[in-house]
Amino acid sequence: MNISHIEHLGIAVKSLEEAIPYYENVLGFKCYAIEEVADQKVKTAFFMVGQTKIELLEPTSEDSTIAKFIEKRGEGIHHMAFATDGVANALAEMEEKGIRLIDKAPRKGAEGLNIAFLHPKSTLGVLTELCEKPE
Amino acid sequence: MNISHIEHLGIAVKSLEEAIPYYENVLGFKCYAIEEVADQKVKTAFFMVGQTKIELLEPTSEDSTIAKFIEKRGEGIHHMAFATDGVANALAEMEEKGIRLIDKAPRKGAEGLNIAFLHPKSTLGVLTELCEKPE
Repeated sequence: MNISHIEHLGIAVKSLEEAIPYYENVLGFKCYAIEEVADQKVKTAFFMVGQTKIELLEPTSEDSTIAKFIEKRGEGIHHMAFATDGVANALAEMEEKGIRLIDKAPRKGAEGLNIAFLHPKSTLGVLTELCEKPE
Repeated sequence: MNISHIEHLGIAVKSLEEAIPYYENVLGFKCYAIEEVADQKVKTAFFMVGQTKIELLEPTSEDSTIAKFIEKRGEGIHHMAFATDGVANALAEMEEKGIRLIDKAPRKGAEGLNIAFLHPKSTLGVLTELCEKPE
C-alpha cells in the first residue's frame, strides 16, 4: 500500500448554511461543490486546501452517523481520509496485520471515489478512510 | 490572510511507543522526528504525508491539555493547523471578524514555527492552529 497524501478531512457540522460562510469568509477557501450522499444520510460541501479537501458533513436525518457523532461529541473533525492506490489490496494487507475493518470491500463514496473505512478501535481513535479514484 | 495548505494534524495518543508502530508498519509512514515541547507538556512524533505532517501528541503530565482531551474524549484528532503567511496579521483580521482567539499573539511551537490557536467555539468545533515558518 502506498499512501500519497491526505485526500480529505471530514468535518461534522450541524448546518452547511452556517458553516460555509466561516470557511469562505474567515478562512478564505472557496466551496466548489455541494453533494448529497444519500446512503450516508449527509449533505457535503467541499473546499480545496492545498492537496487536501475539507469535506463538511451535515446530517440529513436524525439516524445519520453524523447526527449521532454531533449529539455525542459536538461538531468537529469526524474522519481522516488517505489517498492510496488499490483500496481492495490495502484492505487485505491491513486485515492481515490485524486491523479491524468497517468495510470489507471498497464502496462508492462522495465524488465517485472508491472508499473504505477502518475501525477507530484499530487506528488509535482516528476514524480512517482509504480512497482511490476509480480506473 | 492566505492559507496555502494544511500544515499538520495534531493527533492525541496515550503512548508514542504504541502509536508509532501503527503509523510506520500499517500506514507505511516514516517517523522523521521526535521532539518534546515542554510548555505544552507533550512529546511529539512527526510523519510527512504529502504536504501535511501528522503530529502525534503524547502527554508528559496529567495536567497537560492533551491528557485532559484523552480523558474526556479518548485518543483521536486534536487539532488542524493551517500554513499561512503572517500569523500576527491573520489574528488581527480574524479578531476583527469576531473570531475568538486562544493566542492573541504568535508564540513558538514545535519545529520552531510561529503558531497561534483559534478557539473551537468560533471555528465550528475544530481546534484550529495557524502557523508560519519564522523569517
